[in-house]
Amino acid sequence: MTKINVEKCAKILSEKDDILILMHAHPDGDTLGSGFALCRALSALGKRVRAVCADEIPEKYGYLYEDISMPEFEEKYIVSVDVATENLLGAFEKKYGGKIDLCIDHHGSNTGYAEYLLLNADAAAAAEIMLKVIKALGVRIDKHIAACLYTGLTTDTGCFRYASTTSNTYRAAAELIDCGADNGIINRVMFETKTRTYAALERLAIESMEFFGNEKICLITITQDMYKKTGTTEEDTEAIPPLTRQIEGVEIGITIREKEDGTCKCSIRTYESVDASKLASYFGGGGHKQASACKFDCGVEEAKKMLIEKSLEMI
Amino acid sequence: MTKINVEKCAKILSEKDDILILMHAHPDGDTLGSGFALCRALSALGKRVRAVCADEIPEKYGYLYEDISMPEFEEKYIVSVDVATENLLGAFEKKYGGKIDLCIDHHGSNTGYAEYLLLNADAAAAAEIMLKVIKALGVRIDKHIAACLYTGLTTDTGCFRYASTTSNTYRAAAELIDCGADNGIINRVMFETKTRTYAALERLAIESMEFFGNEKICLITITQDMYKKTGTTEEDTEAIPPLTRQIEGVEIGITIREKEDGTCKCSIRTYESVDASKLASYFGGGGHKQASACKFDCGVEEAKKMLIEKSLEMI
Repeated sequence: MTKINVEKCAKILSEKDDILILMHAHPDGDTLGSGFALCRALSALGKRVRAVCADEIPEKYGYLYEDISMPEFEEKYIVSVDVATENLLGAFEKKYGGKIDLCIDHHGSNTGYAEYLLLNADAAAAAEIMLKVIKALGVRIDKHIAACLYTGLTTDTGCFRYASTTSNTYRAAAELIDCGADNGIINRVMFETKTRTYAALERLAIESMEFFGNEKICLITITQDMYKKTGTTEEDTEAIPPLTRQIEGVEIGITIREKEDGTCKCSIRTYESVDASKLASYFGGGGHKQASACKFDCGVEEAKKMLIEKSLEMI
Repeated sequence: MTKINVEKCAKILSEKDDILILMHAHPDGDTLGSGFALCRALSALGKRVRAVCADEIPEKYGYLYEDISMPEFEEKYIVSVDVATENLLGAFEKKYGGKIDLCIDHHGSNTGYAEYLLLNADAAAAAEIMLKVIKALGVRIDKHIAACLYTGLTTDTGCFRYASTTSNTYRAAAELIDCGADNGIINRVMFETKTRTYAALERLAIESMEFFGNEKICLITITQDMYKKTGTTEEDTEAIPPLTRQIEGVEIGITIREKEDGTCKCSIRTYESVDASKLASYFGGGGHKQASACKFDCGVEEAKKMLIEKSLEMI
């Protein structure tokens, strides 16, 4: 693995053709926005290029790849975008694992699986790096590329809210708006609109809230029954875990999701005072200091008991 | 009334002393952030200056005026900040109405009540204009001024989410972060932390949601009983009305709040398809196209009936 800078990355890409861009499974706005922006830019340079993802792309991201033509060809160069480890490729890991030529990423935890790695862990989103790459390629940032990159920035920063957002992120956003990204509409679609089914699930989730440890621990339980009642699936629960941490005084927020087979998995959110990855690792999971996850072979009630017991030791 | 530009505004301020800055009643992050930033800047120039507001300042804004010394003096020059009309001064209207020398504002609806008016209706926040004024005054943006102005920007744009946010807003934010504004912490305090009592009220508000007109109308009812149950007051309801508009397919979101005397008031939120001010004006209220308000002399149930009837005509 060789670490490279933006200029070298642009130079390599400009010399290649028949390029396949891989985005991570369970795709989010940053992997999709960065991936399709690069796809559009390389296309504009006359190259054959395709951006793909192992999982279905949620409907709300449709505008990112609108009007892109993605020809069929045998890939000669493989680039991954916003993919920290090869297993995040999901179903594509088997096919492309060990074969990735270039990776563009902003995760400090990147395992260096690609031949070349352009990594900037200070970037709040992969899109922040991709803007630089596309400019270095000499491609004009049109309104479509701008919308893709702005989507990456805003989704990975919770609409410029998280502490990871830097002045560079804001400057990149300003530049993309000037290039035609419609920030008002993009943010409305990404943050203001709840589907009716999600709203119903969120309501049940909030009703399930329990507090422990002098109200420093907040626990939400999502059962299979709730999915049935509201017409939702586990895919709809992405926005639930942050709710646990929003309440004043809460130091550990836990979301338990019941799986179809009766076992469960758990998301943990904390503030600085508690290391979420430590709590998760006790149960064989892992993650970041303020956001982690783990799985259980047991049912919801048993998992809950263990999680609360261990959480009480940490506050 | 004479309209002036940023340079003229700075020139006027630099020539005055014993300056009183007025912020609007029911103060928000923009009037407070802009007001205290100007107060700090004029102080730095060696002037006697005080920034005041008719209502109590919510605790979470404490850092805006931390370590400011505000001496007593008889005011010789009065400046209002983010105040569109004199009646928004609340209890101070009687004392200072008709006496305001200079107004710095971003509301297109400003009534021009001051002798001089610096107005930019394209600015997403008064803080965006104030940054320019303070720079024109030749004052260095220190971390305190930066935190004040960043607070104004982020609160008036819903954390850079609303369509009113422009590339200039993002650039101003970048500059303020570089000057020491701690965006991560400010946004957490402003947007991520719900008090326990507010969280309880929000839960009841969500439980009260009713849908009408093929689910295009969403109605939340907040009763006096809910305030009692949760230990909240009407002051805590600011974040409730946007919840009505967040659900997919909803075109009119209505929040009815019962008052102590049994009458009620109502907030209306819409998207482009419906003019909220038109709906409110039918009941003697008013506001913007997407956010308006009106009052009723009757109880909740009667108001609800009238509102739904009229809303059904508009969708």
